[in-house]
Amino acid sequence: MTYCVGLLVDTGLVMLSDSRTNAGVDQITTFRKMATFPAQDRVLVLMSAGNLAITQAVVNLLHDAPAGVEGKTAILQASDMFKAARVVGEALREIHERDAESLKEAGHEFNGTFILGGQIKGEEPRLFHIYSAGNFIESSLDTPYFQIGESKYGKPIIDRVISRSSSLAEAAKCALVSMDSTIRSNISVGPPLDLAIIRRDEYKLATHISIDMDNEYFTMIRKRWGFALKEVFSELPNPNW
Amino acid sequence: MTYCVGLLVDTGLVMLSDSRTNAGVDQITTFRKMATFPAQDRVLVLMSAGNLAITQAVVNLLHDAPAGVEGKTAILQASDMFKAARVVGEALREIHERDAESLKEAGHEFNGTFILGGQIKGEEPRLFHIYSAGNFIESSLDTPYFQIGESKYGKPIIDRVISRSSSLAEAAKCALVSMDSTIRSNISVGPPLDLAIIRRDEYKLATHISIDMDNEYFTMIRKRWGFALKEVFSELPNPNW
Repeated sequence: MTYCVGLLVDTGLVMLSDSRTNAGVDQITTFRKMATFPAQDRVLVLMSAGNLAITQAVVNLLHDAPAGVEGKTAILQASDMFKAARVVGEALREIHERDAESLKEAGHEFNGTFILGGQIKGEEPRLFHIYSAGNFIESSLDTPYFQIGESKYGKPIIDRVISRSSSLAEAAKCALVSMDSTIRSNISVGPPLDLAIIRRDEYKLATHISIDMDNEYFTMIRKRWGFALKEVFSELPNPNW
Repeated sequence: MTYCVGLLVDTGLVMLSDSRTNAGVDQITTFRKMATFPAQDRVLVLMSAGNLAITQAVVNLLHDAPAGVEGKTAILQASDMFKAARVVGEALREIHERDAESLKEAGHEFNGTFILGGQIKGEEPRLFHIYSAGNFIESSLDTPYFQIGESKYGKPIIDRVISRSSSLAEAAKCALVSMDSTIRSNISVGPPLDLAIIRRDEYKLATHISIDMDNEYFTMIRKRWGFALKEVFSELPNPNW
């Protein structure tokens, strides 16, 4: 499996993905699930979950420059984020057309989902969740985040602390705590992590780092969060039943 | 769905179940998922998840007194917990034989899982997880708990704070915090909750209560846990990226 989370706050976007891929427990490997599409007028980050062959094929297709405006790929030509999400959906459908039949014959489902976040000049930052069928939904004020892959373990903490008015730093911190809970409870999610932060109206990646288990900040968060949780838990009064 | 959790600690057992049942989101109802089997020499608690028609049929079968020793049901005749778990597994197989074919024709999977916890005189308290196929596993020192149903949201907190040396009060508190996280993040899990506590070597239920959203202790736990989490989170240093 995989765990990716994208958070949209007033001041920008935080995107975090793990890098564990498994075909059964005896074939665990490391593959990055984050792709970036930077240009003068935009910054786009795409994260993927599902069948790795499918998601890699989609990302590859998105990087292929067709004979377009100035040789630009379709995703860099899209005039707004909605159109960019449609480009991803269409690439997914193209791969579906190419591979779904053979996958079905081999007994595999066609499974690939994406989170696309970014900002294109003339618009606010936006966040999309693209399904295997190529259709998609956009994040709203009430739901400022999307998760793909092993999403359940790390959902409660996001539900509790994040809203659109959270700061980018808080959103990054929350994404890492959410990832930590997931890594602890599910062996199919693991480091290194890819973290991208987009600051509103900068049209570039403010931060794009790889975080492994030795990363100082992540280690500190893991330790202090775990310790604080235990302390808070032990301070809660016991029932008198 | 459903969420049930059973925790085995040195001093006894804590069993907690929700009561929400849904067939789609437009048919949400309340059904208890906890059954108890008390007798002079034992105390058994059974919790179920899956297809309600299947799990109710199994519990019904377990309550049916056959022509046995003193008219006792098979689960009350079992000389140890392992045999009691086998009785549950066999009842599940009997219902499978009766219903699986018709369910399959109607396009439904045969899905029913159980957690059985309790103590029979001459043994330690024991905890079992019984699968749809009627086979089962027993809790060990390393894994002092079982969950069925919507288990992922509430798993991280148990992984962090519970071991076999935890007290019964801590285990009950943890089960409620775990349930709270699940209820907040998943609409298919809901109150009232059934909580049973078994103290080692008492051979009866030390506590058996129904907890709704007005329950004083649960309300306090929900509020204080949520508040403390937010506080701990905000006290964690932000990254300087």
